[in-house]
Amino acid sequence: MGILKDDGLVYEAVNEVDLGPNSDQLYLHADVKAPRMAGFLAKVFVWFLEMKLIGNILLYFLKKNNRIQKLVSFGVLEESPLYVPLHPYEEIEEKEEEFKCLNRGLSPSQQVQHAVDCLQSSEMIHENSNFSFRRWTIMDYSRAYASRQITPLMVAERLISAVMQSTFPEMNMSFFISYDAHDILRQATESTLRYQRGEAISVLDGVPIAVKDEIDCTPYPTTGGSKWLHKVRPCKEDACCVKRLRACGATLVGKTNMHELGAGTSGINPHYGTSRNPYDPKRISGGSSSGSAAVVCAGLCPVALGVDGGGSVRMPAALCGVIGLKPSFGRIPHTGVLPLNWTVGMVGILAGTVEDSLIVYSAISGDAESQQPTTPRLHLSNMNLSNMSRIRMAKSNEWFNDCSDDIRACCLRALAGLHKLYGWETVDVTLPDIEAMRLAHYVTIGSECTTSIAHHLEKTGKSESGWDVRVALSIYASFNSRDYLNAQRIRKRQMKLHEKIFRMADVIVSPMVGVTAYEIKDDVRETGELDYVNGAALVRYSIAGNFLGLPAVTVPVGYDRLGLPIGIQFIGKPWSEAKLIQIAYAMEALCKAEYKKPQVYYDLLTPN
Amino acid sequence: MGILKDDGLVYEAVNEVDLGPNSDQLYLHADVKAPRMAGFLAKVFVWFLEMKLIGNILLYFLKKNNRIQKLVSFGVLEESPLYVPLHPYEEIEEKEEEFKCLNRGLSPSQQVQHAVDCLQSSEMIHENSNFSFRRWTIMDYSRAYASRQITPLMVAERLISAVMQSTFPEMNMSFFISYDAHDILRQATESTLRYQRGEAISVLDGVPIAVKDEIDCTPYPTTGGSKWLHKVRPCKEDACCVKRLRACGATLVGKTNMHELGAGTSGINPHYGTSRNPYDPKRISGGSSSGSAAVVCAGLCPVALGVDGGGSVRMPAALCGVIGLKPSFGRIPHTGVLPLNWTVGMVGILAGTVEDSLIVYSAISGDAESQQPTTPRLHLSNMNLSNMSRIRMAKSNEWFNDCSDDIRACCLRALAGLHKLYGWETVDVTLPDIEAMRLAHYVTIGSECTTSIAHHLEKTGKSESGWDVRVALSIYASFNSRDYLNAQRIRKRQMKLHEKIFRMADVIVSPMVGVTAYEIKDDVRETGELDYVNGAALVRYSIAGNFLGLPAVTVPVGYDRLGLPIGIQFIGKPWSEAKLIQIAYAMEALCKAEYKKPQVYYDLLTPN
Repeated sequence: MGILKDDGLVYEAVNEVDLGPNSDQLYLHADVKAPRMAGFLAKVFVWFLEMKLIGNILLYFLKKNNRIQKLVSFGVLEESPLYVPLHPYEEIEEKEEEFKCLNRGLSPSQQVQHAVDCLQSSEMIHENSNFSFRRWTIMDYSRAYASRQITPLMVAERLISAVMQSTFPEMNMSFFISYDAHDILRQATESTLRYQRGEAISVLDGVPIAVKDEIDCTPYPTTGGSKWLHKVRPCKEDACCVKRLRACGATLVGKTNMHELGAGTSGINPHYGTSRNPYDPKRISGGSSSGSAAVVCAGLCPVALGVDGGGSVRMPAALCGVIGLKPSFGRIPHTGVLPLNWTVGMVGILAGTVEDSLIVYSAISGDAESQQPTTPRLHLSNMNLSNMSRIRMAKSNEWFNDCSDDIRACCLRALAGLHKLYGWETVDVTLPDIEAMRLAHYVTIGSECTTSIAHHLEKTGKSESGWDVRVALSIYASFNSRDYLNAQRIRKRQMKLHEKIFRMADVIVSPMVGVTAYEIKDDVRETGELDYVNGAALVRYSIAGNFLGLPAVTVPVGYDRLGLPIGIQFIGKPWSEAKLIQIAYAMEALCKAEYKKPQVYYDLLTPN
Repeated sequence: MGILKDDGLVYEAVNEVDLGPNSDQLYLHADVKAPRMAGFLAKVFVWFLEMKLIGNILLYFLKKNNRIQKLVSFGVLEESPLYVPLHPYEEIEEKEEEFKCLNRGLSPSQQVQHAVDCLQSSEMIHENSNFSFRRWTIMDYSRAYASRQITPLMVAERLISAVMQSTFPEMNMSFFISYDAHDILRQATESTLRYQRGEAISVLDGVPIAVKDEIDCTPYPTTGGSKWLHKVRPCKEDACCVKRLRACGATLVGKTNMHELGAGTSGINPHYGTSRNPYDPKRISGGSSSGSAAVVCAGLCPVALGVDGGGSVRMPAALCGVIGLKPSFGRIPHTGVLPLNWTVGMVGILAGTVEDSLIVYSAISGDAESQQPTTPRLHLSNMNLSNMSRIRMAKSNEWFNDCSDDIRACCLRALAGLHKLYGWETVDVTLPDIEAMRLAHYVTIGSECTTSIAHHLEKTGKSESGWDVRVALSIYASFNSRDYLNAQRIRKRQMKLHEKIFRMADVIVSPMVGVTAYEIKDDVRETGELDYVNGAALVRYSIAGNFLGLPAVTVPVGYDRLGLPIGIQFIGKPWSEAKLIQIAYAMEALCKAEYKKPQVYYDLLTPN
């Protein structure tokens, strides 16, 4: 028993609870405040109870007086709900040459080394000339540092200068919510010294990586894009995924901008400004991981971390023309990530190239040390296209086609290329009830968000939130338990349907978003924007990844008539990240000859 | 896509959905009815939305117009929610002599034969003289039939006569909601012929077994204790557990009375009368499996099936002085049981003796044939007390003592006996937040109940329900998704706490209920009764079994000063039914010399 406050019981952490006989836990006797009733009295009570208004008032007091509010509704505790969409698995020894199966218990840098080995098995790794435009990769940084052409400290200095320049009024890119030049330079100096001593930890040593402001990363507060969350929830230590990046020597360069509380898809943020799309700074970079997509797009980091609760990594990746990888639910420990929901969100990776997404995926994946394994051993794919098995891609036509003409044409062309170049096969299927799944996911993420932050929100009031977020929070709080439970029934149904689809095909293919980046209007600066029509169009293809816990990846495949990036998406079976990354690599190989440089782009490796 | 109706979408069964390219599934385009807003307009909208009354009206239309109601809230589908408290397990080869581990895929009658073997390994099985009073057991019936002293048909005739007699106004026991003399006699005749041919299927052949009216059993409707549920949900075939009993040759003798919709603990039912307690027919038999407890208590059946969603098997068993066994969540398939909830309910067994609970447990347990195993292989305990390991029993004192003086004294005496006779050990512990768990369970079962039946309820209106149930349904419908989700967080916390307790002890011991059977007042006949104070006292010890999916058993250990039965409870680790049954057997052996015959008792084996 924790502290019994006026509003809700604050439950003690399980590990601090004394379960011994002389425990100070308070035993609460049942204190039922409802008189026995039967006969006429019971009838009168029911009449009142079933009246709309009086009934609600009666119910309010019944719940309040009987401590349901104090002990349950308003209870404050650290646990997630009992159930999460963690897929069962069987450990398999991968016999195919295609995949490498890592032992448990490797360090992040050891896992990274395996990823690098996978890259080096590829004959294509140095054929970078095939890229019409390519951002510098982790291997580029690593090789440049190793050859002493440049040091991590020089890169850090250029980065700080570029970020400062991007904040000038005429650019106003709003990439970061916070970054600390001092802290960046300190890390870069340490890394530089390691290279001087010949003691670089991994290929990530000294590589700049940005982190979405939904993930704890010292010395920064974790705002979640809000003006208040960090005040009530201080960031005390690095999130698990950040710790792993640090253990590889990466330079963590700050906290990227995001849609407030992840509650939107545009990335329009009235508090910290709106991350602008480097391909056209008049336009959104998408959300909620808006800043992470934009910094990778603009060349500031080869990789950034995001969190994907409803496409929040993949959508901005597609709008900014970079890779977006959302692993299977549970693949990356959630420790130190804001619990804005419990069953749909997952740390994801935004990267300039597929090989970089592989490297960072290998660095941060795997069960947390303390716990029993709940995820299968990590598989990495040998990036060797000549050696790759043929892929069957499920395509649900009406859904696939429910996007702008340019996106449809571009994704169809990419598919045709896969058929032609690799002999892959499209399996025509029908994925039913996509729109119902979108709404059920909305009810789920909304219910979980409100449950997770309501306790904090009551302390600060809604007034510090943006107006668009206040609308979202009002809607979220309106869901009743029947809404939530029926959403979970739809979820089970969709899981069964997707299992059937995966018996017919290896992956599901679709566009990543229904529209390309749209313009940031003038009236959004103070209030944010309510635009559920564009929101629905953006999120249309994202839901299965989150609601069913499936891994998914987006790869840029072209541009619309305005020159705005277009991404395709592949959704895989549970735990099939290795195959997905391989597929993404094949897709990228097909399109990279047409990649374009964004309007806003910083080159940190080449002397200016 | 199923039928799109005014109220809610009726989703097609997964197996009937055509996933091919030419499927008739309708693709619903997102139809977002919310105009883009920003700036002043957004502010005005938020002001309205955050007003209590107007906000609710706005939200109602937002949810309705955007099809959340049609596709999610009011959707009609057969799936349960995604997550259930199914415990993970590791298959173990039981090396100990104490337990027998059955292979998968045995028929119910084969499993029963293994149970009988377990009994025969006991030196105590024929020492029935130790019972001061004992109901006839399955083995008694089986031996009597085999020796041709009596036939199943004769037993069926006596049973029908006894049940009819019990319905006379001066007795008015209200044991059954429906029973069909014709159908009973038919089954009994078939069984009699099998014995004549020497082809009895198992020891259950011809043994009368009653089934709670929450479980499908042809040719009866499944009312769930209501006046309307069977009208909208016809019973089409036997539930899985009933099929298994039939496959063993048991005579299914009808559908026992219950608390309407399982929504109460008293068993007071305004529609079908209130099952009376055979130890004192002025008093309740408890609920919700009221009739199942009463018929076993009164000697009409050695065993009856119940369903335990919040102690609904164990509480009436304790109040009626019989054995009540609730297995681990998932141990018995739920197919054909009314889905009044999805995550807390479990078919349970009410029996006159522990050996009978073992036999019927072995008959009905195990995964459904069609599915992948989700439960470990069945273990049965050799009923051999001399061979039994010492048991450590966790006891949380304040909780243990939160009951009437007679119950406390009686349970403490039983514990002292276990120490003395078997050398078992009590481990003093503190189980925190029991009351919070009770309320969280109430929110859970209420939310799931309302979600499960709301669709039916809307068709019939509440008016056909009892007044007490109408109050319950009003409260259930008032829970929002935050209530439900926070309840699931409390659930996870309690799971962790219980895991810690189970590292210190083999079982948790407690009284089964806080009060003995109370009187049925005159004013309840028409309206039912609202008595949440007694309800809380009855349910106090039940919750962990349901909320955490743990197996639990109650054994009668004595009587209060009015001669009313008192039960003790043992709660086990997940999947530890074999050990629990053994513990119950040891407990019974200790107390059986003091068992008393109820006031209302029918002897079906001895000629009258």
